[in-house]
Amino acid sequence: MSEPAVPSDEMLALAERLADASRAVARQHFRTPVAVDDKADASPVTVADRESETAMRRIIEETHPEHGIIGEEFGRTRADADWVWVLDPIDGTKQFISGKPTFGSLIGLTHRGVPVLGVIEMPALGERWVGARGRPTLFVDPQGQQREAATRPCPALERATFCTTAPELYESAEEKAGYAALRERAKLIYYGGDCHNYGLLSGGFIDVVADAGMSYYDFVALVPVVEGAGGRISDWQGRPLREDTGTRVVAVGDPDLQAQVLEVLRS
Amino acid sequence: MSEPAVPSDEMLALAERLADASRAVARQHFRTPVAVDDKADASPVTVADRESETAMRRIIEETHPEHGIIGEEFGRTRADADWVWVLDPIDGTKQFISGKPTFGSLIGLTHRGVPVLGVIEMPALGERWVGARGRPTLFVDPQGQQREAATRPCPALERATFCTTAPELYESAEEKAGYAALRERAKLIYYGGDCHNYGLLSGGFIDVVADAGMSYYDFVALVPVVEGAGGRISDWQGRPLREDTGTRVVAVGDPDLQAQVLEVLRS
Repeated sequence: MSEPAVPSDEMLALAERLADASRAVARQHFRTPVAVDDKADASPVTVADRESETAMRRIIEETHPEHGIIGEEFGRTRADADWVWVLDPIDGTKQFISGKPTFGSLIGLTHRGVPVLGVIEMPALGERWVGARGRPTLFVDPQGQQREAATRPCPALERATFCTTAPELYESAEEKAGYAALRERAKLIYYGGDCHNYGLLSGGFIDVVADAGMSYYDFVALVPVVEGAGGRISDWQGRPLREDTGTRVVAVGDPDLQAQVLEVLRS
Repeated sequence: MSEPAVPSDEMLALAERLADASRAVARQHFRTPVAVDDKADASPVTVADRESETAMRRIIEETHPEHGIIGEEFGRTRADADWVWVLDPIDGTKQFISGKPTFGSLIGLTHRGVPVLGVIEMPALGERWVGARGRPTLFVDPQGQQREAATRPCPALERATFCTTAPELYESAEEKAGYAALRERAKLIYYGGDCHNYGLLSGGFIDVVADAGMSYYDFVALVPVVEGAGGRISDWQGRPLREDTGTRVVAVGDPDLQAQVLEVLRS
């Protein structure tokens, strides 16, 4: 198998254009009364989710009709193409409908199944992380200023800030045990956050993020962001995150912490 | 016992001046490397905590040297005065040191032990709720625009959005049972947030907030904000929150939901 391609400047610009579109839609609906449906899995889904994904799909279809799209709301289109955009228009829908500004939009791009570009877009906060294979991750602040994002050193799990979205994510006995062990060993734990936690890890504020119950569109965009900032991200077995690796994700800011964290999760 | 006094316009202006001071200090230190100590209870405390409380104490001493002050960092000064300011300079220190912008500053004022004025200040978000006995709660947006805040109706717990900061707050068997019962019955649960949850409840985005392990300075400011927005806030027995009511807090946006929630917490 050949190496995955490196995304072009044009693809990076397109990813930011998708993030701009999602930001506009999300801001328009944030903290306004929205219709809250129940999907089959009982997660709330809003008008903003659907409008945002529709807006992003339209831009991709106009600029790269040969690219595939996998989106949370509208499923798979040409998912066997070389380049596939993987979209989660509102990551953290519970936050969105609770008026919490730390929901995000996730825009990922894979080349032959390998995540090569990712944007963690925070519409209400106005901040954004942009990662791409072969480039340093950029943090874009609310004023549009860019700077390189870098994870921080963390010599031991006992010194680590560990973030996870919710205890309910851990369903199997194995997951519950891994979460409990990590919580026990880390210096401190904080909840909530969804994709924002991975951005903050990439910015050097959090040392470990773990979640379970993640879907493909929840993690594709995270991979290039975390890796381009100097961190490591994998499933709980340490395997690279791909469509078939399943639902358990763990990221560390300090690469030297990865082995220890994986061992704790498997213990 | 006579009715508690109603805070004057001058006291409201002073409370906002304290919030401005805390905002300035917190913003100066947010997302910069800060020294993280360990207090006796192992919660992290930062330079920002201490500088913010110092700044607020200085303003109170200059304007009302006869008022008392109870602060998280520097303890009790004239705590037997009629008017006592109750300050938590950084509520959500774990959020602050993790780069999460949803930490707050809490500024409360009691008259003879009764909370009569409260500000939930969100330094990094630039938003603020101001509540005072006898007045409607105001929400101040990042542009400084004010509007009245109001809770939303929620006919049944099964339709409620329930927020709490962390499962670890619930330590006793009674607390764990109450939390588990509420989680079971509510439509959805989300974690994290600290004082921001009570602001969002006051703004009509969240229906129920419960926490345990709360200190006096964690809840005084919340009371006038929630009540002035039409909600109810009490301890888990339904008693008004005072210095001797302990550490368990529950707020509902819809007053009609209070009896049901209290019953679930005690079941």
